[in-house]
Amino acid sequence: MTRDFSPKERLILFDTTLRDGAQTAGVDFSLADKRHIAALLDGLGVDYIEGGYPGANPADTAFFQDPPRFGHARFAAFGMVKRAGRSLDNDPGLSMLFEAKADAITFVAKAWDYHVRVALGVTLEENLASIGESIEAAKSRQREVILDCEHFFDGYKANPSYALSVVLTALQAGARWVVLCDTNGGTLPHEVERIVAEVCARAPGDRLGIHAHNDTENAVANSLAAVRAGARQIQGTLNGLGERCGNANLTSIIPTLLLKPDFSEKFDIGVPMERLSSLAKISHTLDELLNRAPNRQAPYVGASAFATKAGIHASAVMKEPRTYEHVAPESVGNKRRLLVSDQAGKSNILAELERIGVKLDKDDPRLGRLLDEVKQKEALGYAYEGADASFELLARRVLGDIRDFFEVERFRVDVERRHNAQGDLVTVSEAVVKVRIDGETSISAAEGEGPVNALDLALRKDLGRYQRFIEDLELVDYRVRVFQGGTDAVTRVLVEFRDASGETWSTVGVSANIIDASFQALTDAITYKLLKAGA
Amino acid sequence: MTRDFSPKERLILFDTTLRDGAQTAGVDFSLADKRHIAALLDGLGVDYIEGGYPGANPADTAFFQDPPRFGHARFAAFGMVKRAGRSLDNDPGLSMLFEAKADAITFVAKAWDYHVRVALGVTLEENLASIGESIEAAKSRQREVILDCEHFFDGYKANPSYALSVVLTALQAGARWVVLCDTNGGTLPHEVERIVAEVCARAPGDRLGIHAHNDTENAVANSLAAVRAGARQIQGTLNGLGERCGNANLTSIIPTLLLKPDFSEKFDIGVPMERLSSLAKISHTLDELLNRAPNRQAPYVGASAFATKAGIHASAVMKEPRTYEHVAPESVGNKRRLLVSDQAGKSNILAELERIGVKLDKDDPRLGRLLDEVKQKEALGYAYEGADASFELLARRVLGDIRDFFEVERFRVDVERRHNAQGDLVTVSEAVVKVRIDGETSISAAEGEGPVNALDLALRKDLGRYQRFIEDLELVDYRVRVFQGGTDAVTRVLVEFRDASGETWSTVGVSANIIDASFQALTDAITYKLLKAGA
Repeated sequence: MTRDFSPKERLILFDTTLRDGAQTAGVDFSLADKRHIAALLDGLGVDYIEGGYPGANPADTAFFQDPPRFGHARFAAFGMVKRAGRSLDNDPGLSMLFEAKADAITFVAKAWDYHVRVALGVTLEENLASIGESIEAAKSRQREVILDCEHFFDGYKANPSYALSVVLTALQAGARWVVLCDTNGGTLPHEVERIVAEVCARAPGDRLGIHAHNDTENAVANSLAAVRAGARQIQGTLNGLGERCGNANLTSIIPTLLLKPDFSEKFDIGVPMERLSSLAKISHTLDELLNRAPNRQAPYVGASAFATKAGIHASAVMKEPRTYEHVAPESVGNKRRLLVSDQAGKSNILAELERIGVKLDKDDPRLGRLLDEVKQKEALGYAYEGADASFELLARRVLGDIRDFFEVERFRVDVERRHNAQGDLVTVSEAVVKVRIDGETSISAAEGEGPVNALDLALRKDLGRYQRFIEDLELVDYRVRVFQGGTDAVTRVLVEFRDASGETWSTVGVSANIIDASFQALTDAITYKLLKAGA
Repeated sequence: MTRDFSPKERLILFDTTLRDGAQTAGVDFSLADKRHIAALLDGLGVDYIEGGYPGANPADTAFFQDPPRFGHARFAAFGMVKRAGRSLDNDPGLSMLFEAKADAITFVAKAWDYHVRVALGVTLEENLASIGESIEAAKSRQREVILDCEHFFDGYKANPSYALSVVLTALQAGARWVVLCDTNGGTLPHEVERIVAEVCARAPGDRLGIHAHNDTENAVANSLAAVRAGARQIQGTLNGLGERCGNANLTSIIPTLLLKPDFSEKFDIGVPMERLSSLAKISHTLDELLNRAPNRQAPYVGASAFATKAGIHASAVMKEPRTYEHVAPESVGNKRRLLVSDQAGKSNILAELERIGVKLDKDDPRLGRLLDEVKQKEALGYAYEGADASFELLARRVLGDIRDFFEVERFRVDVERRHNAQGDLVTVSEAVVKVRIDGETSISAAEGEGPVNALDLALRKDLGRYQRFIEDLELVDYRVRVFQGGTDAVTRVLVEFRDASGETWSTVGVSANIIDASFQALTDAITYKLLKAGA
């Protein structure tokens, strides 16, 4: 009940990941993706979720035929205002929008006089009339209305009074929100602050929103500047998805609003503090759904956002994290990392060892040997920053507290593409692995979807007395990186496994040969599991 | 000569890619990398290039023993001020800094009283004394001095008068520049603007710099805010490299300073307008040196920065690019792209066809067939946004203006790891490919570094009468992406080839089997070359 009596102003978050975010190069949401992401956003506490553009593609149309049930958010459908010169009933786009099962309709309309004349080919008055009529028609169908003013800032610079008249017409017609869009993304923060303040002098700020794009890397700053100038709705996307350079990144804006006193003391948002700690996970889940590599350097949620590399700095961070971190990593569901890297000092290695439960004195000579070993391996192309399990194995080998569970004497993998007896073109992958355990050898063969899958299956087919520990292993990720390009390239393979307990671990292999590199990573992954299982 | 008489103020760009950028997770510069990047920065027109931290690692020490010759930039060495309680001659760090062959020395010193007391364990006065003495000692050795005030903004919030006294002490001791560092990266633009303005009231802005980090996604905005408040030096890195979330991104800041009137009309920078068009290339060269995938969404220089996906929007962009792009793509060496994608309308496909020299009427029924084909392929996992050559082949196949040069009847590839006669563990990769050309078959075998290399060599060993067209092919990149993880994964392979003319082209292959996917991409690449060569 605190919120109701709170003296703070309420800021509204409007998510357009599923609409403007779908314009990202390489991103195509399935209907299942849309449902999944919408549920994440509602759980987080976003106020509006724009689901898409009914009629633009089959997934969007289907999404609005059977809309998700939200606990908190309102569901918005996006579309254009009525075409000038047509009647309301004779605009198929508008009909689809009205048929969509949505709480709110986001209309987009042009606010730049030049575009009205040239792109639409109608008079400035006709444009205003069609905005007003569309809004009134949506209102009469019990929909809340949001008007996105396309090219608002460029339009305002060219013809402020016309841009303003679009805003005022929409408010008068009953739009709950009018959103000032920096469609081309070229407006700078000081311009946004000035122009929004000028608009707020003519229209109530709690009915104005900001929609920024990142073309000058200022989308977050532009959104914050608009709020400081009086706007009370922020539109953006998770992970800054969006056309060209992306939309304003809600994944960065939300923690700033909740954790930075200049905003948190003045504003309430729909995301409660206790949900903020799910932010990193939501961000990574979205990347996973989209098969995108997460941005390690992403503010707040990136794997490197609280990572320290330099040796001297690392020891200070460990002593006094509070003064070296602008916010607590746990607050956004992230964690502090001290990177084991070529630049690493002993403090990083010690911190990593402590994390895996190994206590070593900082004057122990084995520490220097381990540091040398890490540096040598990294020079060959190994990267332990994303392969914790391989680092642990390396460390335990240098420290002498691990034994070899099994030895691979040889392996072979064949991939053949040929016509089968029916004349169809088929590809067959087959692997043979010979392992030695406690002096006894065994040889296993397997077919797989591809060479790495065949090798993985053959290797795990018969590990003798260790077999029972590896039955629940599942390969969940396989990534390949090639260095220096071309035939002299070195290949780095990262694999991630999961077991029945849900624990995941990552290992690395490096070789000129992708199969060799993959095999190294596979054997490390199995060895790690055996170590953990106390085999 | 225009510049000398310009009424504009001069803004100074200080690049720290080779020092603070070296703190990026996963980045390790070799000495050769440092020389290469420094030459790029000098050619661009950056004013200071901070080369590293002499004594911190062997590459940095060597870099300053044999410094690069610059046409424009000054070369700066980074290090700490003298430790309190030691004499100048008895501080090994300082000695190494003075031995470094650099035009300028960047000292870093603490400006937050808490850190002075707790981390350094000295009095506030001792810290000021050691700053003053270090600067004077460097000046007496004919070095220009820059003082980086660590944690300046946090320090100023806690104890403004002490933070200010650090600035004033340094200026009095003769530092050319005092740089206000947001070391933890948590300060917001409006705070930077206020605090820098307050400092400018006590010290000349043309001796003050800003050093911002991107922890709230505001590093660019913070840098611009500091300039608006009076600071005249900006520190940053190429591509926003740097510890945690990175430093202020000069690759975004430079075009904003040159292309946005609010800055370009007021300030001159060392980067001349005609060099700005090398920016995209410099950005990509750095990624290549570091084996990092370029950020497609990077402002100004990313592959998607001027890309349009939506069908309706695409046709408008083609008609009127000026009003849909905040700056001209060519100004930063980038280009306009209309993406062929699942969301594509006919306009995107038409634009792509036009780019490859195919004119088609928009009512031609083959256009619809091609769009359907693209959508089907993309549903299987193909991505043509990064594989122009595969798109062209697909289009020409649908349009019927391409024939099959050769047909692969079958292939086989074996990878075997075993002990050789000398008892060494070796891995051997061998491929056999059987092709049919004009009704005649030929079979070729080759060994390679790995299975894909072996296949590539076998395939290109004997293409009969086409052989002479493919002698100059070189595989320059090979990338692998796995979808949905695990054994049911689909693998997408992108390859890039180059020929003797320097032209490069990219192709894509998709399959559950990595070898199959690679082979598709290889055959597309060769077919494309034969098509281009008019074979």
